[in-house]
Amino acid sequence: MSAQLDVAVLGCGFMGSALARTLAARGANVTVWNRTPERAQALTASGCSAVATVQEAVGRARIVVICLSTYEVVQAVLGDAGTLAGRVVVNMTTGSPDQARPMRDRVAEQGGGYLDAVIVGYPEQVGRDDFLLLVSGSEPEWETARQPLALLGGISRHVSESPEGANVLEAATVGAFHMTILAAFAEAARYAKAQGISPKEFMPLAVRVASVLEFQQEEIAQRLADEDFSTDQATLATYEKAARTFQHALSSSGTRAPLFDAAVAEFGRGVAQGRGEDAVWTLAANRDDA
Amino acid sequence: MSAQLDVAVLGCGFMGSALARTLAARGANVTVWNRTPERAQALTASGCSAVATVQEAVGRARIVVICLSTYEVVQAVLGDAGTLAGRVVVNMTTGSPDQARPMRDRVAEQGGGYLDAVIVGYPEQVGRDDFLLLVSGSEPEWETARQPLALLGGISRHVSESPEGANVLEAATVGAFHMTILAAFAEAARYAKAQGISPKEFMPLAVRVASVLEFQQEEIAQRLADEDFSTDQATLATYEKAARTFQHALSSSGTRAPLFDAAVAEFGRGVAQGRGEDAVWTLAANRDDA
Repeated sequence: MSAQLDVAVLGCGFMGSALARTLAARGANVTVWNRTPERAQALTASGCSAVATVQEAVGRARIVVICLSTYEVVQAVLGDAGTLAGRVVVNMTTGSPDQARPMRDRVAEQGGGYLDAVIVGYPEQVGRDDFLLLVSGSEPEWETARQPLALLGGISRHVSESPEGANVLEAATVGAFHMTILAAFAEAARYAKAQGISPKEFMPLAVRVASVLEFQQEEIAQRLADEDFSTDQATLATYEKAARTFQHALSSSGTRAPLFDAAVAEFGRGVAQGRGEDAVWTLAANRDDA
Repeated sequence: MSAQLDVAVLGCGFMGSALARTLAARGANVTVWNRTPERAQALTASGCSAVATVQEAVGRARIVVICLSTYEVVQAVLGDAGTLAGRVVVNMTTGSPDQARPMRDRVAEQGGGYLDAVIVGYPEQVGRDDFLLLVSGSEPEWETARQPLALLGGISRHVSESPEGANVLEAATVGAFHMTILAAFAEAARYAKAQGISPKEFMPLAVRVASVLEFQQEEIAQRLADEDFSTDQATLATYEKAARTFQHALSSSGTRAPLFDAAVAEFGRGVAQGRGEDAVWTLAANRDDA
């Protein structure tokens, strides 16, 4: 077996256990450690080796997957790891972008390479086609880790050379965008229901509307990359005008709509900045006054 | 031919022309009228009869489809229509919910039945499976109009007995929800790009996130209908806590995020109202303090 496939998994919660089981089932040589040893021990039935200390687990591995509760816990566990020379740490613990770089530096002090990673999904998705792992960090570490990470199924993607890249992408999408969609959905459903439209009428149309990005995704991504906001379709000014009509419908019904109000204000702001003839995607541009 | 399929189309812009052509091609007896007669005349090549007056068009029809620029224009055109007795007006003109009921009353004064309708889509979708027409108004009128409207393809849906129902649903989805998603997408993309994540990395994950409602749509609709917000998954309080972490990531990077800020405030508001242990869908409930 290639040493590339010698993997330690530190932290055997639901997610860590799913990772360890899948790696072992697909041919990796997996050593597991957990603060409460029973959870590591349980994985021996799935072909993993359970060890009592972090140092022992790290000593047997080339790739060290960490799946703990917080970055603070990761710091504490690394204190027991000893040298990390010749190893690549893949930190799948949930954290914020500003925690990634200090962690990389910490691992480097112990001689190890570092990748930060975000799991987008649930433990039951590990190993499936819809498992998504976002990885950031420098290219050589990614080359070392990509083969064992590919055993986890789905698409492991190297999204950035900066260590914080994966956490940034998570904050932007799984964080901000996802949660804003949920709150906006709730707001619109509340208005519709108060006006006599049942959730079963509202829901399919809301789903249809939410899928609008999907059909234009290549074009939108290209336009954002090129900062090309020319359009022969609806302009930002057109959106603003229509939005104010819909805003009147909601507000005159007495529905609080802070999300939509914020959207209308963003359209108005862009128009006031002289971007009214641009496509609506102009709002994604980074400008000095953005 | 059934009198049911005697249809007048008032207004032959891009959309009205597409409607008239499709109805004629699928067996309806279509009479068209337009303020500028050339546009009506052009439709004779597609099997429609063009007439010079509104009254003449209405006189030949059982179903009167109106597709004009504003409700004010519709009012003016109806002034030239004469009696509407025995006819059902289907008003597809874009308008706001508070305009629907006065229009129904106006049509009733002239002896006609009234349905308000919203076209969700573009002229080129007319006749296709993905054409969507939302119709509201009382059941007997819907029964009269459903057969000719079915010729337009796609799914014509009767969404409410109230005349304003279709416009409400449009304001909630095509209006508020859609536009809030666009603004939220722009905001998240702006943050990601400023932090070194390219639009091509951001886009597919944003699309994945936006489709989250699709996979749970039946369950969500049922829960909203039942106002059942119990959960053994993430609670509103859990969402709020995670949201504040992501909010910190965005704000400490210097990104303006008014949409996401509004979402976080909504989560916080729900928790402050004692709904922290509910599922996140609780925010869609209409409460006295909502």
